[in-house]
Amino acid sequence: MKAKVHVMLKDGVLDPQGEAVRHALKGLGFGGVQGVRQGKVIELDLEDGTSEATIEEMCRKLLANTVIESYRIEVL
Amino acid sequence: MKAKVHVMLKDGVLDPQGEAVRHALKGLGFGGVQGVRQGKVIELDLEDGTSEATIEEMCRKLLANTVIESYRIEVL
Repeated sequence: MKAKVHVMLKDGVLDPQGEAVRHALKGLGFGGVQGVRQGKVIELDLEDGTSEATIEEMCRKLLANTVIESYRIEVL
Repeated sequence: MKAKVHVMLKDGVLDPQGEAVRHALKGLGFGGVQGVRQGKVIELDLEDGTSEATIEEMCRKLLANTVIESYRIEVL
């Protein structure tokens, strides 16, 4: 089975990576870019029958830093 | 207006980051993780009226390395 975990920085947390991308886009001549936020998407190829609770535990223990990041699980 | 760009490594391209995550999950006792692929999701806050062609150009010039990565644009 496959699952996707979408990890983004929580609102209000400074995103230096996003700022760097915004700055670079401006430098390339792309005006009108008011904000950029960058996150991760992790595609998991799991044994059939893996529960969402197990995936949740993977997120809390490793895939997301829950202090500054929020995550969303999508079972495919 | 908002848009999301999903960037993933192309199939067949080695994903060391994904391998590291798979290895770490195994070390934490999560058996049954057959594969992990990690990509980026970039949320863009753009001026109204920005065309998809412009976003496409942003992807080709900066947001994705089209030699090894594929991207998908989602206008919200």
